[in-house]
Amino acid sequence: MIYFDNAATGGRKPEQVLSAVNASLRVCANPGRSGHKLSLVCASNVQKCRDTLDHFFNGYGYDRVVFTKNCTEALNLAIFGTLKKGDHVVTTCMEHNSVLRPLEFLKKAGVIEYDVCPLSNGNITPESVRSLLRKNTRMVIITTASNVTGAIPPIKKIRAALPKDVLLLCDGAQGAGHINIDMLDASLDFLTVAGHKGIMGIQGSGALLFSERVDIQPLTYGGTGSMSLSLDMPDFYPDGLEAGTLAYPAIVSLLEGTHYVTVRLEQIAHRLTALTKYLINGLSAFNTYEIFSKPNACGIVAFRHSSIQSEYIADTLSSRHNIAVRGGLHCAPLMHEALGTLDGGLVRVSFSHFNTENEIDRLLLALKEIGNR
Amino acid sequence: MIYFDNAATGGRKPEQVLSAVNASLRVCANPGRSGHKLSLVCASNVQKCRDTLDHFFNGYGYDRVVFTKNCTEALNLAIFGTLKKGDHVVTTCMEHNSVLRPLEFLKKAGVIEYDVCPLSNGNITPESVRSLLRKNTRMVIITTASNVTGAIPPIKKIRAALPKDVLLLCDGAQGAGHINIDMLDASLDFLTVAGHKGIMGIQGSGALLFSERVDIQPLTYGGTGSMSLSLDMPDFYPDGLEAGTLAYPAIVSLLEGTHYVTVRLEQIAHRLTALTKYLINGLSAFNTYEIFSKPNACGIVAFRHSSIQSEYIADTLSSRHNIAVRGGLHCAPLMHEALGTLDGGLVRVSFSHFNTENEIDRLLLALKEIGNR
Repeated sequence: MIYFDNAATGGRKPEQVLSAVNASLRVCANPGRSGHKLSLVCASNVQKCRDTLDHFFNGYGYDRVVFTKNCTEALNLAIFGTLKKGDHVVTTCMEHNSVLRPLEFLKKAGVIEYDVCPLSNGNITPESVRSLLRKNTRMVIITTASNVTGAIPPIKKIRAALPKDVLLLCDGAQGAGHINIDMLDASLDFLTVAGHKGIMGIQGSGALLFSERVDIQPLTYGGTGSMSLSLDMPDFYPDGLEAGTLAYPAIVSLLEGTHYVTVRLEQIAHRLTALTKYLINGLSAFNTYEIFSKPNACGIVAFRHSSIQSEYIADTLSSRHNIAVRGGLHCAPLMHEALGTLDGGLVRVSFSHFNTENEIDRLLLALKEIGNR
Repeated sequence: MIYFDNAATGGRKPEQVLSAVNASLRVCANPGRSGHKLSLVCASNVQKCRDTLDHFFNGYGYDRVVFTKNCTEALNLAIFGTLKKGDHVVTTCMEHNSVLRPLEFLKKAGVIEYDVCPLSNGNITPESVRSLLRKNTRMVIITTASNVTGAIPPIKKIRAALPKDVLLLCDGAQGAGHINIDMLDASLDFLTVAGHKGIMGIQGSGALLFSERVDIQPLTYGGTGSMSLSLDMPDFYPDGLEAGTLAYPAIVSLLEGTHYVTVRLEQIAHRLTALTKYLINGLSAFNTYEIFSKPNACGIVAFRHSSIQSEYIADTLSSRHNIAVRGGLHCAPLMHEALGTLDGGLVRVSFSHFNTENEIDRLLLALKEIGNR
């Protein structure tokens, strides 16, 4: 099958990731829970992964790297662990339900209020974010890249437009591993990571990185292998935010995946930009498809047919042409509302750097056939 | 290394689990997020895993099987998702910090009160649980097996001693895959599972099974691949409790591991009982060690030396004898308090059915040497 659904989950993993995970399944000790040699080897790899992520994103130290099961958990931890009654939040219409649903819950519970920044020419501008700020705005939440169109908001400029005391949370689900994210340089307070997309790890991996300006309350409470006598969570990081056994094989995949992308970041971004450009050029030749993406390093191209529903196209590509893409709303309802595509959704093609122009040619042929039917 | 730390995490996985996980890493689609063939294959395996766990534990239907990253998250979901202001909880001194720390948090936040059932001859009795009930007791939380000694509370008798409207939550971290747990027969309302211990899956796998009597609020909010237009979580299970990408490789391991133990449950229990008996007999011959376990199907034997700290013994076994065990308090402070072992802790040896008498002989030789030094 030609796999063009890498924004949902990375389809092909580098061999070094696969072999490291396989090796981890045969070591099998619990990192941080016992003092024997096998456990210490695992704990050392977990520590290496914190260091590697901290360096890759230029974060605030290994102790401010917390592992989660997915990017959604990282976002929930940052949002629920930080916001207090009376806080105001500014977010954007680009956000995924992993941001919108926690905010909506807190709003309905009477804890916070939030405003949603609209699109300006398909992207978010510093001015439009700033215009929504209130005196009690505690946090701005913005994605590093739209999971629908691949548009990349100007995070550094947005940060520069914000008062210093406003916390900035960036959702790295699509951006991490695709574009350069420098937490210190951009003064990000939180970055959430999906390990199984651009970072080339496996599902079950994710992380939250955060600055020393923030103090996060746990989402879950339990054993940490530290301070066992106490019935309270440890008051230090990362232990205080990591209750229960860590997903060691997933963390190993995150370690190897981050190594892989660290030395290839520019090359991958260049390749993905070329692939999106190639598809956009090909699609532009048909006049039955409307394109919602520009060439981008996230590898995403979204489009719709003038009269055929996106999910019908996705189903037909799968069943008749053996090509995997995603139709519908991509868990981003406000973005589709902003784009005017709630009705019928969009076809989203999402590449990894392993994809080829030859595969795109087959997609274009199939789209031509479907579009002309 | 001789691995006797299976109560922390299972050291050796069955070959069918390893090969299924390896295969899952090469399929790599996101179950429940897209409609293409690869995604549907993954979704079908996720569904099979729900069915398999539901059958294995005789639960309340596949839609009441929710995947978590570990047993701790499952316990937190059951506790935080169910308890309300003014509720009273009865738990036991056998519990792990994954139960005690969430309860202590809720107590300090003024939400609940809880009482802790003491030991009677090394175990929990129905009478002592019942004596702690109050009018507002909403939930009883009790482990299926002590992670310190391997003692197995009489869950069915305890349930029979409780009023019907009291919810019963059982922590299956040590019991699942070792003893027969029948949710319907024992009228359990919640069962939490660690996938990487007795169930033979990998780290990053866990589950919560629950009855139709309970309604659980989510711990995390986000995309579910369903009801994407709504900013609220779906109001049906399992979707409403599973935000974000599932840990597919871990779920595959849980599926294969559950198949593995389903057809071997008695045989494994028999083998573990024999191994614990063998070690207890061997240890009894030395008069320098005090033993805190009886032969048990959880494969756990805890003991202490009359004058040497447990962690020193564990360290020496690792560094000089290449044997992995766990010393200290095992994240179960109230159990050690009840046993009188807070000072110095216990050495915990925990077997899997892959361990051998020959390995135990080497442990006994090492313990003799250490004990006589």
